[in-house]
Amino acid sequence: MFKNPFFNNKGPIKLKLIFSACDLNEEKNKINDLIYDVKNLTDSSIKDITFFNSIRYKDDANKTKAKYCITTKKLSSFLPKTCKLLVVNNVLLSLSKVTKIFYPESVSDNFQINLKPLTKKIIKQNKLKIGKNILVGKNVTVGKNSSIGHNTIIENNVVIGANCSIGSNVILRNTIIKNNVHILDNCVIGKKGFGFYPNNNKNFRYPQIGCVIINDNCEIGCGSTIDRGSLSNTVIGKNTFFDNQIHIAHNVKIGDNCVVAGQVGIAGSSIIGNNVMIGGQAGISGHLKIGNNVHIGGGSGVIKNIPDNSKVMGYPATEIKNFLKMKNNND
Amino acid sequence: MFKNPFFNNKGPIKLKLIFSACDLNEEKNKINDLIYDVKNLTDSSIKDITFFNSIRYKDDANKTKAKYCITTKKLSSFLPKTCKLLVVNNVLLSLSKVTKIFYPESVSDNFQINLKPLTKKIIKQNKLKIGKNILVGKNVTVGKNSSIGHNTIIENNVVIGANCSIGSNVILRNTIIKNNVHILDNCVIGKKGFGFYPNNNKNFRYPQIGCVIINDNCEIGCGSTIDRGSLSNTVIGKNTFFDNQIHIAHNVKIGDNCVVAGQVGIAGSSIIGNNVMIGGQAGISGHLKIGNNVHIGGGSGVIKNIPDNSKVMGYPATEIKNFLKMKNNND
Amino acid sequence: MFKNPFFNNKGPIKLKLIFSACDLNEEKNKINDLIYDVKNLTDSSIKDITFFNSIRYKDDANKTKAKYCITTKKLSSFLPKTCKLLVVNNVLLSLSKVTKIFYPESVSDNFQINLKPLTKKIIKQNKLKIGKNILVGKNVTVGKNSSIGHNTIIENNVVIGANCSIGSNVILRNTIIKNNVHILDNCVIGKKGFGFYPNNNKNFRYPQIGCVIINDNCEIGCGSTIDRGSLSNTVIGKNTFFDNQIHIAHNVKIGDNCVVAGQVGIAGSSIIGNNVMIGGQAGISGHLKIGNNVHIGGGSGVIKNIPDNSKVMGYPATEIKNFLKMKNNND
Repeated sequence: MFKNPFFNNKGPIKLKLIFSACDLNEEKNKINDLIYDVKNLTDSSIKDITFFNSIRYKDDANKTKAKYCITTKKLSSFLPKTCKLLVVNNVLLSLSKVTKIFYPESVSDNFQINLKPLTKKIIKQNKLKIGKNILVGKNVTVGKNSSIGHNTIIENNVVIGANCSIGSNVILRNTIIKNNVHILDNCVIGKKGFGFYPNNNKNFRYPQIGCVIINDNCEIGCGSTIDRGSLSNTVIGKNTFFDNQIHIAHNVKIGDNCVVAGQVGIAGSSIIGNNVMIGGQAGISGHLKIGNNVHIGGGSGVIKNIPDNSKVMGYPATEIKNFLKMKNNND
Repeated sequence: MFKNPFFNNKGPIKLKLIFSACDLNEEKNKINDLIYDVKNLTDSSIKDITFFNSIRYKDDANKTKAKYCITTKKLSSFLPKTCKLLVVNNVLLSLSKVTKIFYPESVSDNFQINLKPLTKKIIKQNKLKIGKNILVGKNVTVGKNSSIGHNTIIENNVVIGANCSIGSNVILRNTIIKNNVHILDNCVIGKKGFGFYPNNNKNFRYPQIGCVIINDNCEIGCGSTIDRGSLSNTVIGKNTFFDNQIHIAHNVKIGDNCVVAGQVGIAGSSIIGNNVMIGGQAGISGHLKIGNNVHIGGGSGVIKNIPDNSKVMGYPATEIKNFLKMKNNND
Repeated sequence: MFKNPFFNNKGPIKLKLIFSACDLNEEKNKINDLIYDVKNLTDSSIKDITFFNSIRYKDDANKTKAKYCITTKKLSSFLPKTCKLLVVNNVLLSLSKVTKIFYPESVSDNFQINLKPLTKKIIKQNKLKIGKNILVGKNVTVGKNSSIGHNTIIENNVVIGANCSIGSNVILRNTIIKNNVHILDNCVIGKKGFGFYPNNNKNFRYPQIGCVIINDNCEIGCGSTIDRGSLSNTVIGKNTFFDNQIHIAHNVKIGDNCVVAGQVGIAGSSIIGNNVMIGGQAGISGHLKIGNNVHIGGGSGVIKNIPDNSKVMGYPATEIKNFLKMKNNND
């Protein structure tokens, strides 16, 4: 299984600390069980705690192997008998507090201070082409024949494959880049996602322990931002090309061979299929599923799932033939 | 009263210079009155000159204490008798020329050349966490326990509060940041606004003497741009969170506890209330007033004022129930 | 004629290499003709090869002076008898392969490694104001009284005129900047355009041998990206002003005295007239022609040509009176 190299799990954690974080007092002093990790419904093992927040995920809930689950009273009936409940009012808020216990460093996103130039030895060994003033953290890997532009910052544990080119003024953290990937100038990849529990005077941040994975042969245009996942990862499929000024939120998964034109934005947790073409300035709302071979016209606003092989356009995005009918009516 | 630390007022200025700048010849050689500053209708004192350009501000005009006012013939009847008139054809163009006399450095926005690293003494005293290659101007203040990322540029007189984190590759000028604020990587905050009088061959720039004020507990996402005010300031309220690639134009005021998703743009001089939620890629036109507790759907284009407690969506943005009705008709 | 200083033409090239690149075998070993350059239909001389891909350009095809033309069977009848044919299935793919033979360095867009600070001699001679940590390539020209901000990167052969100001964290390559131009912070200008032939597993990039030309008195806002042309150039006319976060794709031509508000995007090869005003977040599709004196409302999505003197708004953009009628119907 994929091991996240970016955040240290402080587990196992005593269950009483977890109850306490959820403001559940009743059993606080009784429980000395150890919990090893916090994961989503699908990835949890019998040693882990998970969460279940929306009826949309009831099938995953039914099959979870997790030992404990943070959920609401209403949803608890969908969970298997083997899974013990922490019934709370606000699942995401409690989840945040619990995740913070396992991964205390995942909330802040402060830059890493002790970065240094790459050593001449590594540059020579791997035949790297390296710009001026670059700063690199601990345990960073850069594959053979890759290049890194001027002023670029690469934080601890980032992995860059072979034959990659990273532009100038790029910032990479919590990111795994496979082979033959091109990241153009001024990108910021792997920062914490825009996730928090709104709270007057001082919002409460969800921890973001996922990373960004960019697969072989991708290109990411200038000035793009790709946020890392919260509990899962943000993933860009093979041979997918982004134009400039793209914004990809946390947990988004994009398939292979997609083409994404300039200034497109994709909101959190949406899943995009393979061979999808997205026109300039289009926006896709969060938690949607876009099928394979879909064409989304430039400027569209997608606010519902789109089945395979569709061509959509407009705001809200609709079948392209309906959009053009509207257009003609208005001309 | 708030004192702008960024631009030096060359006043008092002789009135004849001001008349001359407005191409008003008749009294040019007669007047030796001294004018101390140029301000908006509300902030002017008996020593200052102001301007009055739009009927929309007639109530403010009626109450102004300014000694002189640049205005049009048509609007002059709304001003009090105590206020002497400079009647011109183009108020904003004349205002620009007058402002340039008081604040000659406010038109250009050239970078400051004599920046240096922070001194070790200040870093130690204030327990700062400081990246590599940062450049800092004169009279910059950084509060205790704050951090500043790599390659970040902070120009003269900028104020950063305590417990702030400023990312890498950030540029700050003409900006006052309160406590516990997070500015993420690649932001440019405090540049001159996009204001000028279009003129064939060579546009004439309005001076921009305001600043940007970011209040406690805010977060500003990667690659965002917030322009400073022209005569007033651009203000972000407490505990307001911005996602990535946000664009905020000059003079915008945003309230407390707002949530602004990725790639949103707000045009000049609009005022946004408290607890406003703005979805991704939404745009708000200039000079609008958005009430408290308003929800603006992703991708919306707002072109009129929105009252308190509304939920709007679409382009042009309309009540969300109307938008969804249209949507269903088109499906 | 304008000579592109950025890419070395490896021509003349033997015709058999060109036939081979187009997968045309029949005459491969017979031909030793020399071809000097690859150009578009209009610019080609009797020594050059061109391409003809769309019926939209049939008038240019009819008048071309090129010796050879890459085209399809269907289009070949529009070409003059003097022009010899290379009939292929995919004109753009074959063109890419041929262009790559003439300009092998135009496909990759790797940063240039051997950049250095400007010499003190040039700084003094030309009265330049130069920030810290700037990196400049070979044969870069900077005119008198210009300034260049901190951390800015200027690659080989870039030309900057007199009285220009280039901001901080800017990246310039393949760009010619005339006099009195302002490029604000964090812009990336002159990178390769987003052009490629989609191909499963590994897309095939079109070479991009054009450059960016920015004429006198322009201003380009923070965080904007302007891509260089593919076979022709990307051109910004005199006294045209851009707000922040603009995206201009390859081959776009914008006229004089235009005003482009924040977050606008213009797709590849569109041509914009003089005195055009474009509101914030508007998008213009590729290969369109927008006339002179056109006003495009904020948030509009333009998907067809717009005649001179029009005012349009909406998505798809339509005459503004139709847009407002729709709006009222929906209120």
